[in-house]
Parts: sequence; structure tokens; C-alpha cells
Amino acid sequence: MDLNEALYTTRAMRRVKPDPIPDEVVASMMDAAIRSPSGGNSQNWRWITVTDREKMAQLGEWYAEAWKQLNETFYAGRVEAAREKGDDSTLRVMNSAQWLADNFASVPLVVFPFHRNDPSGASIYPGVWSLMLAARGHGVGTCLTTVLGIFKHDEVCELLGVPEGKGWTNAAAVTCGYPLGRWGLAKRAPASDVTFSESWGNPPDWPEIGLPISLD
Amino acid sequence: MDLNEALYTTRAMRRVKPDPIPDEVVASMMDAAIRSPSGGNSQNWRWITVTDREKMAQLGEWYAEAWKQLNETFYAGRVEAAREKGDDSTLRVMNSAQWLADNFASVPLVVFPFHRNDPSGASIYPGVWSLMLAARGHGVGTCLTTVLGIFKHDEVCELLGVPEGKGWTNAAAVTCGYPLGRWGLAKRAPASDVTFSESWGNPPDWPEIGLPISLD
Repeated sequence: MDLNEALYTTRAMRRVKPDPIPDEVVASMMDAAIRSPSGGNSQNWRWITVTDREKMAQLGEWYAEAWKQLNETFYAGRVEAAREKGDDSTLRVMNSAQWLADNFASVPLVVFPFHRNDPSGASIYPGVWSLMLAARGHGVGTCLTTVLGIFKHDEVCELLGVPEGKGWTNAAAVTCGYPLGRWGLAKRAPASDVTFSESWGNPPDWPEIGLPISLD
Repeated sequence: MDLNEALYTTRAMRRVKPDPIPDEVVASMMDAAIRSPSGGNSQNWRWITVTDREKMAQLGEWYAEAWKQLNETFYAGRVEAAREKGDDSTLRVMNSAQWLADNFASVPLVVFPFHRNDPSGASIYPGVWSLMLAARGHGVGTCLTTVLGIFKHDEVCELLGVPEGKGWTNAAAVTCGYPLGRWGLAKRAPASDVTFSESWGNPPDWPEIGLPISLD
């Protein structure tokens, strides 16, 4: 797969089939993940791949609860506001996220990355994103979710046998599966709107560049 | 460029030439960066590209001070310990990092990403890593550094005109330039050593997979 194809079309793929992902694909995704940089090459990371249906049933319950909590706190009023504004993009994301909350237990594979001595996250999320890009190369859809780590951190760590008092923190639950939806370009504010040249507020003076991929 | 080539050979490229990076390449790197995921697609990011030599001179001074502080605190004894153990890999990283501290002001481009409402870093470091992978595709070497943000956060924000009280936090200083060194596979502990299957401590039962790229 072409690098730009992966960088541009790896959208959050929450809706996935229950079909299992072959071991060699999982091994390949993980092998790509651990090539990523970490501060001082510390590689202070561990990863747990979960496919066990009993564990997934429990995780699915917690995920649904955590998603509900997110909607009652940080996301309170979000759907209503999007409806009023006619913000279809946000509504689509929220619908898709609700699907994941309703179907988390049927996701064939979830990868849980853990890190320590990494307060900024700079040493784990490049690896998480490499995992997701490598998955894209294998036709596997992923979604970077953090609600379990926010609302159910201790429960998840206990279920997965993460040792206590060693400083390990869960960074994400990356859902993985063969997509029900289509790959494509996600909606973003243009780079020239969010990038400044030399100083905050100073717009860049870039030539026009086209998309480096062709969209069907 | 092939996705795996980028994922496997984008090593920290600290030693770079002072030659400027064309605007269309910077625009392309930024365009790739903003395709990355962020929580709820919030895109709560801003990016500043710095090439101005006066600003870089000041940043270079601060970088050298910050690097010294890092070596006196978190990294204290690191070089000595590596020498005693004959750990050449760590010594090479430390030498290369010292080069960057001595030559920061000559780096042609540094990209400063800022984020807010993102305590874990999950919504900025995928984008930072996409920037670095896209740079790799253009033959541009990068290094994800965080010491300025740790030791000189307020000074950097003032120099770059970042508005106060709006919640913006600097996530990194990504140095960018055409490499003096060679691309290649960085040293990592194997995925099978740091990945567990279903539960912490349980090794994965994966088939052997080869490297997906050829090394010269």
C-alpha cells in the first residue's frame, strides 16, 4: 500500500464484521507498531491483544457504560447541538460511535497499549497510530478509543492482569476488524487554516497542492 | 513511497543539513498531518512552522539549556551507565541527541504542534507521527523532541505568540531537514516480547513473519 493512501484514508472504522483477524496479520500490525519512536528509545510499552469472547463480553458492558458516562459529561448536549446546527458530520460520528458502544463485544480484536514514564503520551500514540496504519495496509479497520481508560481504567487493568504499582497506564483500546463501511477521506479543517507561519495567527503562504491520492 | 517502508525506516533523524525545505513539501506534510484522528474529530490542534533564523537562534539556546537540564535530571547517569554496560545503541542515541542540542539553530524547519482538551495526548501525537511519516515520503528527516515543552514551555509560547489562557499546550518540537545520515531500521525489542495475548504475561502464539521491506 502507498503511504499517502494509508495516511489519508485511515478513517475511524467503528463498524466492523465479527470475522477473526489471522494471527499473521496481528503479528504484522504489532511488528509495525513497535518500530515507532519513543523518548530516548525507551520503548516503555506493553500491548495486550484481546479476542477472547468472555473477556470481550465484559469489556463490551464496560464500554457501553463508559460511553454513556462520556455522553452525560464531556459530550453532554453534543448531539442536540449538532441537530440544531444541521452538523451532519458530527451526527454521523456520534451515530457510528453509538454503534460501537452497542456492538463492542462483537469486535473480533481489541489491542490495549500500556505505557509508563510518558506523561505527555508522546511515546505511545505514534506506535498506536502505526498499528492503525499497518492495519489499514492489511484491510483491517481500527478505531482509537479512550473511554475505557478514562472511566474503567482499574477494572480493565484487573481483567487483563496488568500488574499493580509498576506505573503502567492504559493508553487506548484500539478496536480492529474488517470494515462494514468504506475507506475514505474524513472531514477536516484545511491545513492552511490551522497552521501558522513563524508566529501564531500568521497564515502560511503555500502554493496550492492537490490531494496525493485519487478518490473513487 | 510504500507504507511499510515509511513505518519501518522513519528513524529519529537528528543530524540534518541546513538546506531549506520547499513550501510545497511543508504544505504536503501538514496536509497529511491533519488527516489523522482526534477524539470526536475535535481537531483541537494548531501548528506553527518556524524557519526564521532569529527565532531559531533563540530556540537553539533554549534547546541546549533544556537538553542540559534533562541530562542533569531524568537522564542523569545514563551515558555513564551505557558506557559501563557497553550499550552502544544508547550511546549512539545520546551522541546524536547531543549533536541536535549543539546544532538546533541550524535546523531549517521546526514544527510546533499545540493541542488542548487532550490530557492523554491521544488527539495530537497521531498527527505528529503522520507529519513525520509524510516527511519521510518526501525524503525529509524528522525528530520528535519534547524537552522544550518540558523545560521552556512558557518561553517558547511567548516567542511564538501563543495566546495565553486559551488552554493551548505545546506537544513537541519536530525538527525537520534533509538527512545527513541514512534511513534504516532502528533497534527495537521484538513485538513478541512486548505483546501479550489475552492477559498480561501470556506470550502470543504467532507464526514467524519476515520483515515486509528489503534492507540494503
